Amino acid sequence: MANTSVSSNRAFMSDNTAGASPEVVKAIAAAASGHALPYGNDDSTTRVRRRLDEVFECKVDLFPVSSGTAANCIGLAALRPPWGSIFCHQDSHINNDECGAPEALTDGAKLVVIPSSSSKIDPIALSIAVKRKVGDVHSVQPAVLSISQPIENGSVYTVEEIRQLSRIAKDAGLRVHMDGARFANALDRLGVSAADMTWRAGVDILSFGLTKNGAMTVDAIISFDPQLAPALAFRQKRAGQLASKMRFHTAQIEAYLTDELWLRNAHQMAARLSNGIKLLSGPELVAAPEANILFCRLSQHTIQGLLADGYKFYHDRWEAGTVRFVTSFSHTSDDVDELIAAVRRNGGA
Amino acid sequence: MANTSVSSNRAFMSDNTAGASPEVVKAIAAAASGHALPYGNDDSTTRVRRRLDEVFECKVDLFPVSSGTAANCIGLAALRPPWGSIFCHQDSHINNDECGAPEALTDGAKLVVIPSSSSKIDPIALSIAVKRKVGDVHSVQPAVLSISQPIENGSVYTVEEIRQLSRIAKDAGLRVHMDGARFANALDRLGVSAADMTWRAGVDILSFGLTKNGAMTVDAIISFDPQLAPALAFRQKRAGQLASKMRFHTAQIEAYLTDELWLRNAHQMAARLSNGIKLLSGPELVAAPEANILFCRLSQHTIQGLLADGYKFYHDRWEAGTVRFVTSFSHTSDDVDELIAAVRRNGGA
Amino acid sequence: MANTSVSSNRAFMSDNTAGASPEVVKAIAAAASGHALPYGNDDSTTRVRRRLDEVFECKVDLFPVSSGTAANCIGLAALRPPWGSIFCHQDSHINNDECGAPEALTDGAKLVVIPSSSSKIDPIALSIAVKRKVGDVHSVQPAVLSISQPIENGSVYTVEEIRQLSRIAKDAGLRVHMDGARFANALDRLGVSAADMTWRAGVDILSFGLTKNGAMTVDAIISFDPQLAPALAFRQKRAGQLASKMRFHTAQIEAYLTDELWLRNAHQMAARLSNGIKLLSGPELVAAPEANILFCRLSQHTIQGLLADGYKFYHDRWEAGTVRFVTSFSHTSDDVDELIAAVRRNGGA
Amino acid sequence: MANTSVSSNRAFMSDNTAGASPEVVKAIAAAASGHALPYGNDDSTTRVRRRLDEVFECKVDLFPVSSGTAANCIGLAALRPPWGSIFCHQDSHINNDECGAPEALTDGAKLVVIPSSSSKIDPIALSIAVKRKVGDVHSVQPAVLSISQPIENGSVYTVEEIRQLSRIAKDAGLRVHMDGARFANALDRLGVSAADMTWRAGVDILSFGLTKNGAMTVDAIISFDPQLAPALAFRQKRAGQLASKMRFHTAQIEAYLTDELWLRNAHQMAARLSNGIKLLSGPELVAAPEANILFCRLSQHTIQGLLADGYKFYHDRWEAGTVRFVTSFSHTSDDVDELIAAVRRNGGA
Repeated sequence: MANTSVSSNRAFMSDNTAGASPEVVKAIAAAASGHALPYGNDDSTTRVRRRLDEVFECKVDLFPVSSGTAANCIGLAALRPPWGSIFCHQDSHINNDECGAPEALTDGAKLVVIPSSSSKIDPIALSIAVKRKVGDVHSVQPAVLSISQPIENGSVYTVEEIRQLSRIAKDAGLRVHMDGARFANALDRLGVSAADMTWRAGVDILSFGLTKNGAMTVDAIISFDPQLAPALAFRQKRAGQLASKMRFHTAQIEAYLTDELWLRNAHQMAARLSNGIKLLSGPELVAAPEANILFCRLSQHTIQGLLADGYKFYHDRWEAGTVRFVTSFSHTSDDVDELIAAVRRNGGA
Repeated sequence: MANTSVSSNRAFMSDNTAGASPEVVKAIAAAASGHALPYGNDDSTTRVRRRLDEVFECKVDLFPVSSGTAANCIGLAALRPPWGSIFCHQDSHINNDECGAPEALTDGAKLVVIPSSSSKIDPIALSIAVKRKVGDVHSVQPAVLSISQPIENGSVYTVEEIRQLSRIAKDAGLRVHMDGARFANALDRLGVSAADMTWRAGVDILSFGLTKNGAMTVDAIISFDPQLAPALAFRQKRAGQLASKMRFHTAQIEAYLTDELWLRNAHQMAARLSNGIKLLSGPELVAAPEANILFCRLSQHTIQGLLADGYKFYHDRWEAGTVRFVTSFSHTSDDVDELIAAVRRNGGA
Repeated sequence: MANTSVSSNRAFMSDNTAGASPEVVKAIAAAASGHALPYGNDDSTTRVRRRLDEVFECKVDLFPVSSGTAANCIGLAALRPPWGSIFCHQDSHINNDECGAPEALTDGAKLVVIPSSSSKIDPIALSIAVKRKVGDVHSVQPAVLSISQPIENGSVYTVEEIRQLSRIAKDAGLRVHMDGARFANALDRLGVSAADMTWRAGVDILSFGLTKNGAMTVDAIISFDPQLAPALAFRQKRAGQLASKMRFHTAQIEAYLTDELWLRNAHQMAARLSNGIKLLSGPELVAAPEANILFCRLSQHTIQGLLADGYKFYHDRWEAGTVRFVTSFSHTSDDVDELIAAVRRNGGA
Repeated sequence: MANTSVSSNRAFMSDNTAGASPEVVKAIAAAASGHALPYGNDDSTTRVRRRLDEVFECKVDLFPVSSGTAANCIGLAALRPPWGSIFCHQDSHINNDECGAPEALTDGAKLVVIPSSSSKIDPIALSIAVKRKVGDVHSVQPAVLSISQPIENGSVYTVEEIRQLSRIAKDAGLRVHMDGARFANALDRLGVSAADMTWRAGVDILSFGLTKNGAMTVDAIISFDPQLAPALAFRQKRAGQLASKMRFHTAQIEAYLTDELWLRNAHQMAARLSNGIKLLSGPELVAAPEANILFCRLSQHTIQGLLADGYKFYHDRWEAGTVRFVTSFSHTSDDVDELIAAVRRNGGA
């Protein structure tokens, strides 16, 4: 049995391979001693609720869960009747990477892809879709728009883009869901407030991702509409996602939100990487990185050299030569600089 | 906002209020550094799989999840077609305490209660139930027997009782599920091997509870039938229960199984408590404790005195005077002795 | 291959074995010629809607479906959120005879049996049940009371009994469903109006049974709450129960409601049978018949004689000697009198 | 309230507006007298089963249901695990016109559209799709190919095309479903045997449509794989689609299959219409009709004239001037010739 652990400073495959921030570890260790009321009636959960109200500048409802898939599906289910459709992008995580969990956990929802020539949802196509077959009993009814922020390739919707899509949805009576698996990276990129990027732009429910950015085992549903709370609470339980020892979830969230750890963890290492690679003559950037994901084109020689050096990254999922580097909170400036040097050393200069 | 934390050594309300074992904390902290492959392809998960094979003396399949409800429902779903019924006890957790998660996560299962005059499933009633309406398209079809071990009041099935129920089920073509939310307590009580209490007695899938007994955020589905593995894997993902940073789940399991921590944590504090209370003249034991739960009858005076002393326990859920003390891994002999002294001091002598 | 058709005038097994009323046949034949708009936009459906408003003395919504099971399940689904429980009697059709269709078609509902010592739902037990675990996220939430009228053994709730149960349900915030598979028989028995037996007594949705009482292939959901109509319409379609050539459903309903065919079909043949058998010395009535079902006790000699004469009835489902005769719209007074004579002739005198 | 009935010989809107064949009416009337065993244990159902074995030249299993949507969804559900995806064309009925019933009745299936530039499923795109993410727990797994025959625009797959698609599916371990809502029209067009167009070409389950082609209220699931029968039987019941008075369903099927009524009803009136219109100078055929659906382009003057004459047809669903005429079993040669004359008279000459 080969050792499958990965040399940390050369792991650029996914932010899922990173561990957890020391602050999170410390918090969970502190939470481990002493008794506390279960199911969210403990002090840590109470403090986190208050802290989230501050972060989002309004009263929010919090439902910690153990995965982004759970956060997405429970949130989506609360926003629609069984015959309500969910509009999403072809490349979205809910459409491709959750094994039909949205269909399973939402009483049989139909996901309807908005045709698009780019990696973002096209507002014009959405405008048409929200009006199709409304009131027609033979068709699922437009009910929810789900936006990924950032999207799967690392691009980030501007606040104005989110507002525009939300407005189209809201004007047609739909609700708006945001899959924020890498929420902090988007926020860091845009430099706006969490409120501006969510409820002020029309978002009803947010999947607030933590695990990819320094937490261990927790993501969270954040609801901006108090009327949705009962449905979310009962659906969380029915999905097997109500933790008895909730404090171990909320201790992670608390540490994550303290002293801006979440924003520090989302630091722009991908930007540093991008800037370094831009200076080389061989590699070609596919696009400027907006969150923590960088796509570029390398020669086969360079790719093989990097792999031989122990670097881990995806290189065989797209057209030949296209590679993806994902930076995470665990990478230092040195790690990134070493990667740039390795690219150069392996023929990328 | 009142402080809802609970003085640890006087908390006998539920094992859900206890924190986590230091060994578990240490393991999860160690797992936090470095990169590792996600979704269970890491070294910690590999080691835990091997360790579980040893513990259960056979090749098992492991699916870590974030709650006992998830473990129960995903396991049950894998054992039956949508029209297959699940036989259980009236008082079982799946029937009473999971908000219909079994119905939700099993494609609409029907739970069928086996009538019983005791807190255990009655073999004769089961024998009748497994034959009812077999092949009748108007009725759900007997498909699964679910046994809680220990049961909800803390009693423990003997191995022979499990074997007898399993035999009835298996002879009629049913599969057998065990809800082992407090599995270690039952094992400690019976003093038998994990294999004897499960697959050798006919169990196909076990909900292996850890959270109540010293872990933080993890329970596990253990399957003894390799053919069930694909269904369990896909259902785990579809339920939003496949953790990306799986090592944080399996690090807990690894620590739990190391140096018999799980069995040490399940130590018989309830027995010590029972023995102490038996010597007093006032209190009356409802039954000898078999796992970590003790029911006894106290005077109102004693109850009020204990509450005034800061003790936490359930006292108003049953007929007047009946109280429940639940010991957990976090209680020491001193904690128990102090409780006995407090009962005496408050008029229980 | 044996001929499985049954001599009509000796068939007392179930009202499911009867054919259809000549008036219904004539109506469906008339509906077969000419074109008409599909999916309920035809004249026949429009007329039936108006007729039902008259019959029920209020504006109702109609959703014709192809089975009583479909009527029950779609109706129940519209009355509750996924975590809402459905209270019913142990012996109810939805609990025993629908193969878990209620669980399947209601997004995983949990049916909760109200303990009862009689064949009717016990008001006191209901009063307790509606208050259990309200607001407790670990438990399904009381949401719907489902009453069968008549109940499975042929007994009929009085209007006052329905009112009492509904009041308990409504006071606790529940909705009320009535399974009226043999609705006309109950109405005929009580001699009250359809309005009195339904919405005036608190019923929100009625499964209005026609097939057992002279129709061919149609039962209907009748809703007394206009706000439920959209959910019913979309759920009807999603259940594959929206007929394209709806007029063939509604032509049957129209004939059924014309010239009181439905009430004439529900005529009290069981009462005539009961009166005749009461005069004999051998048989013993288990209870006076209230709808079209008569239970009595016969000697084995009499049972065997009736079977030899070609009579069809259930005789081996209960304790030895107990038989069930079900009369249907197709039985004449002569058919009943001949059965009485046959009982006498076979030793029942 | 306007009369919504439609002059039969001028109704070319949909085959859903036609009534029923006299032979079907006669059969259902005959079935109405006398008692018969319920739930498919009657003589008529037995005879139909045998007749279908002859028609399809093999032993088939029959499950009569009340709609094409029910036939599709129950059939699809039996062919896959909950995490199995269903491949279909973008324009398919299951994808567009069933209000998410496939998702609802199949335990949360994901429908995956095969990209295609034509109205038929593209074999090359299918070849790629069947191999995508096989074994990847993050993705639904390729499980079923669903083909509509004829497709929604009236085109018909050749037997060789069906074979090719089936072979791709079967080679990858998928099952094959055929939505034959207008099965007889396709068969009539191709002039092949029912066996050649189904199981010999790889089809596992067929939705055998009758209602659009002369029946009243029945469509049927035909299974060519005996091992699927139990799942279909239980799912039929759980979907509320097991008719108690089954003979009223099977009497229709029996009449439909007698003396080739089904094939006579599917006669090529659309071909006659096409041939007549081809001779005119104004109209332009969009495509030669293959089943009973003809698309052509008319001037606005002609369209308005036809509407003024009382003709019913869809004319505002596509680009301006495109109209759809659907012929049905109820149209005579005279009806078609009059329509051709009306097109000419209204300026189409």
